[in-house]
Amino acid sequence: VAAPEIGLAELAKRILAGDRVALARGITLVESRSAAHREAAEELLALVNDRAGAALRIGITGVPGAGKSTFIEALGLQLCEDGWQVAVLSVDPSSPVTGGSILGDKTRMERLSRHPAAFIRPSPSGCELGGVARRTRETIALCEAAGFDTVLVETVGVGQSEVLVRDMVDCFLVLLIAGAGDELQGMKKGIIELADLLVVNKADGDNRARAEAARLEFTRALQYLAGKEGAWQPPVLACSAQTGEGVGAVWDTVEQFIAQARGRGDFEVRRGTQQLTWLQTQIEEGLKELMLADPAVRAEQAEVVRRVAAGSLSPTAGARRLLAKIAKK
Amino acid sequence: VAAPEIGLAELAKRILAGDRVALARGITLVESRSAAHREAAEELLALVNDRAGAALRIGITGVPGAGKSTFIEALGLQLCEDGWQVAVLSVDPSSPVTGGSILGDKTRMERLSRHPAAFIRPSPSGCELGGVARRTRETIALCEAAGFDTVLVETVGVGQSEVLVRDMVDCFLVLLIAGAGDELQGMKKGIIELADLLVVNKADGDNRARAEAARLEFTRALQYLAGKEGAWQPPVLACSAQTGEGVGAVWDTVEQFIAQARGRGDFEVRRGTQQLTWLQTQIEEGLKELMLADPAVRAEQAEVVRRVAAGSLSPTAGARRLLAKIAKK
Repeated sequence: VAAPEIGLAELAKRILAGDRVALARGITLVESRSAAHREAAEELLALVNDRAGAALRIGITGVPGAGKSTFIEALGLQLCEDGWQVAVLSVDPSSPVTGGSILGDKTRMERLSRHPAAFIRPSPSGCELGGVARRTRETIALCEAAGFDTVLVETVGVGQSEVLVRDMVDCFLVLLIAGAGDELQGMKKGIIELADLLVVNKADGDNRARAEAARLEFTRALQYLAGKEGAWQPPVLACSAQTGEGVGAVWDTVEQFIAQARGRGDFEVRRGTQQLTWLQTQIEEGLKELMLADPAVRAEQAEVVRRVAAGSLSPTAGARRLLAKIAKK
Repeated sequence: VAAPEIGLAELAKRILAGDRVALARGITLVESRSAAHREAAEELLALVNDRAGAALRIGITGVPGAGKSTFIEALGLQLCEDGWQVAVLSVDPSSPVTGGSILGDKTRMERLSRHPAAFIRPSPSGCELGGVARRTRETIALCEAAGFDTVLVETVGVGQSEVLVRDMVDCFLVLLIAGAGDELQGMKKGIIELADLLVVNKADGDNRARAEAARLEFTRALQYLAGKEGAWQPPVLACSAQTGEGVGAVWDTVEQFIAQARGRGDFEVRRGTQQLTWLQTQIEEGLKELMLADPAVRAEQAEVVRRVAAGSLSPTAGARRLLAKIAKK
């Protein structure tokens, strides 16, 4: 991490001026796990906090094979052509230590990565979920500081990373494809529920009719999962990321969703709630760190967990035992 | 709370001997909010912990008007007749301070409440969700200590109480009724997902055909929400709590579910996970209490929350500011 060379104030200044190299350095700093870097990262974030929240944040996930990268490239290119400054981040807690997604993303989104208005930053490798959440939120803030007005956050369709991304974006989009018969079969139930908008991709060539049938099928299935009355009912669209057909309509719908959310005040509420949830998470993490930094607690913890899981110690008594070590200070 | 009169050791002894009066006293003790009572409650729970986990714990929720009380009474009576000792608890964080559900439950489950093998304890009033979780878990433990081998935990079909109950039971049952056309319409999506078993109630008289149609409709809709391959696919049954028809089959299915879960080791894993989650929750709550007991933290907290929600302070900086007050000790 080269940040100290130029000083944090200078780094912040360059990021705010839209300097891509400085932005990349800043992101590397927030990704670092060293304690010294962490402190520097927080200082940097404080220096650029005025711009935090400036971008429209869109989360994108999809079933495997849905063509996420192709879709993000098509959407990103259209947005860039329309004058948006687009940052693409990916969240992949499952990526191997060697950093599997980096080469993949750059290769797959080759055209977008060459566009001057786009900035692509793959997921850092080897992070657990908590670390990924922190890094992604902080990277969004840095991209906003650097003047990006759209941040697309891509996540793989597995595990809890969708929930995590849903909780840091203004609109969450789920990419689907036409399957054989049981359209929603095998999909993680939770993902669909998180969607503000669903898109059946690969509606092209021979697949067009199947995609349209899938779209109707999804639309029908979603009616069974209606939310509160008056709430946004997630629409299901179809598009072809490959030909570009329908991709513009997807963005129009995103903008409709945002406009409606802003009109109702839901937009600000969602953002405010996300901020407070994140505050809460960080307080809890910080408290646990403080607790586990205590040698007396660490000595006892494994024993408590073992006995609670086995049922020989009640969770209440276990918690009390660990907390007593702290409270005595 | 009369516990101190006879001493905790004696109270524990009586509870373990199945004394209903002692059990009720113990529950009143765990429901109390006084700090002294809390300490006594934890001591009592430690004294009876050997029996913790002895009962089959069944969670029951339902859409409004699904006939939950009638169903629980019918099921409870059948279980009592079959030789089970049945405790019925209710979780209702929304109940008014005057204790709306107490009279209601006793009145509605009149026959069950008179059965010698049954014990009905309504939700205490005026608790927030966290308090309700603690009280219900601890009440389950006391009922198990008193020899009950089935605990039915009823929850109202609103808010987060289902998630809370799902996380303390071995099987979660959702009660439905035939609606007009769109069967799942208007239901909270999340509830269905939590179900291990769904039951369409009121399948009697003129309503029988509609209930059967609803059952098929729900079965079909659930196929779109399939979980992992090989996982338990929640079946949809129909019954009439009023005539008793089908209620026995519901219990048979509960037992099949439990048998399968035990066979696969899922039962123990679910219990162990629930215990560890509860340990974690209590550690976090305890840490927050310790933190908020600090006058310096309390003085700063409101300001931090206000600024984070408004966006003028980053959640990271806010958390750091509050944590710094603690770490200095």
